[in-house]
Amino acid sequence: MLARHGVLSGLAWLNFTKSYMLHPNFSSSSVLRRQDHLVRTLCGCNAKNRRRKIVRAMSSGGISSEADADSVLRTLTPVLDPKLHKGQAGKIAIIGGCREYTGAPYFAAISALKIGADLSHVFCTKDAAPVIKSYSPELIVHPVLEESYSLRDFDLFQECVSKIMKLARESNIPFVVDGDGLFLITDSINLVSDYPLAVLTPNVNEYKRLVQKVLNCEVNEQNAQEQLCSLAREIGGVTILRKGKSDLISDGKTVKSVSIYGSPRRCGGQGDILSGSVAVFLSWARQLSSPSEAKETVGSSSENPAISGCVAASGLLRKAALLAFEKKKRSTLTSDIIDCLGESLEDICPVS
Amino acid sequence: MLARHGVLSGLAWLNFTKSYMLHPNFSSSSVLRRQDHLVRTLCGCNAKNRRRKIVRAMSSGGISSEADADSVLRTLTPVLDPKLHKGQAGKIAIIGGCREYTGAPYFAAISALKIGADLSHVFCTKDAAPVIKSYSPELIVHPVLEESYSLRDFDLFQECVSKIMKLARESNIPFVVDGDGLFLITDSINLVSDYPLAVLTPNVNEYKRLVQKVLNCEVNEQNAQEQLCSLAREIGGVTILRKGKSDLISDGKTVKSVSIYGSPRRCGGQGDILSGSVAVFLSWARQLSSPSEAKETVGSSSENPAISGCVAASGLLRKAALLAFEKKKRSTLTSDIIDCLGESLEDICPVS
Repeated sequence: MLARHGVLSGLAWLNFTKSYMLHPNFSSSSVLRRQDHLVRTLCGCNAKNRRRKIVRAMSSGGISSEADADSVLRTLTPVLDPKLHKGQAGKIAIIGGCREYTGAPYFAAISALKIGADLSHVFCTKDAAPVIKSYSPELIVHPVLEESYSLRDFDLFQECVSKIMKLARESNIPFVVDGDGLFLITDSINLVSDYPLAVLTPNVNEYKRLVQKVLNCEVNEQNAQEQLCSLAREIGGVTILRKGKSDLISDGKTVKSVSIYGSPRRCGGQGDILSGSVAVFLSWARQLSSPSEAKETVGSSSENPAISGCVAASGLLRKAALLAFEKKKRSTLTSDIIDCLGESLEDICPVS
Repeated sequence: MLARHGVLSGLAWLNFTKSYMLHPNFSSSSVLRRQDHLVRTLCGCNAKNRRRKIVRAMSSGGISSEADADSVLRTLTPVLDPKLHKGQAGKIAIIGGCREYTGAPYFAAISALKIGADLSHVFCTKDAAPVIKSYSPELIVHPVLEESYSLRDFDLFQECVSKIMKLARESNIPFVVDGDGLFLITDSINLVSDYPLAVLTPNVNEYKRLVQKVLNCEVNEQNAQEQLCSLAREIGGVTILRKGKSDLISDGKTVKSVSIYGSPRRCGGQGDILSGSVAVFLSWARQLSSPSEAKETVGSSSENPAISGCVAASGLLRKAALLAFEKKKRSTLTSDIIDCLGESLEDICPVS
């Protein structure tokens, strides 16, 4: 079945380690064999992507410049061409969702569709699947993971995750690591290091753990941008989107900030919109860079598709949150923000 | 329960082989006996259909004429007569839905209702049923199939499908084959061959497989309409709706195209709207042809109800997609298009 969907264009990773573990009998488990098959199928080939020259939409400069998120959004968002067929505007996989957590993968997956991806897959545990499916018939939900409440099988779990990440890396599929995924990679930083298509999206606490583990020091707010840049450099050029009042984004070479006013509501789930959105925008940003262009512009971090993808996602989320808050005020929830993604994108980047 | 529903007026077939398999113990399985009973009950008698003279709404001519979809829609859509009772405007069965795929059968079944069918049944696996039910209380969902992840029972599965198709053919019930149904019939083309009430709705890849298998050659885009016509003729006069930028429809005698501008969004699920809609319009088209008229017009493919049904479904989907896209732009999803089916049909063919 999955072979029909062809290549995957983005992958988001969230809420899985502490909440669920893979089947303990890793090597012989049919569940994991199936998961493995799914991932191999999804990663199996590379899309022939449409290519468009990247417009230099991001303001140039070194550490600390505010990104022009609207321009980046206009640059990355593809022209809707009736000649394209299903999947060519993006196929996203979300790995996450367990007996306890079902909202996060849904928010990420539906956000990807609302922004313009064609297909959104969720890989989750079998208990989570019927619930996530019931939220929306638009998602394709695969109940391929086993529930577990024990951490003793951590090595087995890590082995499986390493395998998936390795396959994604071999196929040059960008991935976004959020939530429990960050908990895992903080202890196994080699899973993402030196892979420029990896994006980490830590919140305050997740960022603190990363800094402690990788830089072996505490978070320094006075020197926040330099420290973020050092952290990204230390991990080998992954892109980090540090969520906060202003989002700070760095690939170890430059730092961009996105400070557009969003919503003062801090309802849970907004980070999931972000991770799903980064996966889509990053996949679009990559489609814009032809291999030859990529070679020419190596070293020019202003065109790093991971940075562009983060800037676009951060900007759009903030605009949608503002719009939702104007309508719903204190009762604004994450679903309300998702409902505003389309209108916000249309405001910035009209289809016609 | 089902006996009360009487005859089935259309059947759509999608997403079932690779995703689920019937119970391995075919001959003795109570599940399959029940399924068999259901199908026999649904196929058991022929409706005394209202009859109305077919207006020649489709433009005449040989290969390649653009169909006047609006006229066909106005011709086929029945007058809403308060004297009719439940079921007389159409009863559709969707066979599809498994642990992984629940959206597709839902989209097909709810589309059938939104266009005007009275009853929509879904036959799916037991794991899929609660999820599909949760999407809408309007559907009648039968959890009669067993999940399986093995392809080794393919022969048994094929035997069951053959049986259902045979029963449908004996009762002159039209059926639409989409998704995994196409995967199956590509290997067992005799299941549909020489049955003029069978409609195949392949997308790019499914069409490619059909051409390779049946015509033993590659798809020829320069000669697309002639090749489609040959393919339909080779399968013995089934109707093929080849989905694409323009939909091409042929029964082996003529080719119609539907090129109305729809939506540039390629979100997954639009094909499922189409298969559910074809089932409804085809059943309506058949009700318009009296047996005597059918004999008189044999050989006049412009009145083939399968062609009319495909033209109407394709035209309506495109109009609804356009309307949804005008409202939702890039965030248009399949559910948004379904929400526009009624308004689009009313625009073309007002009830009053």
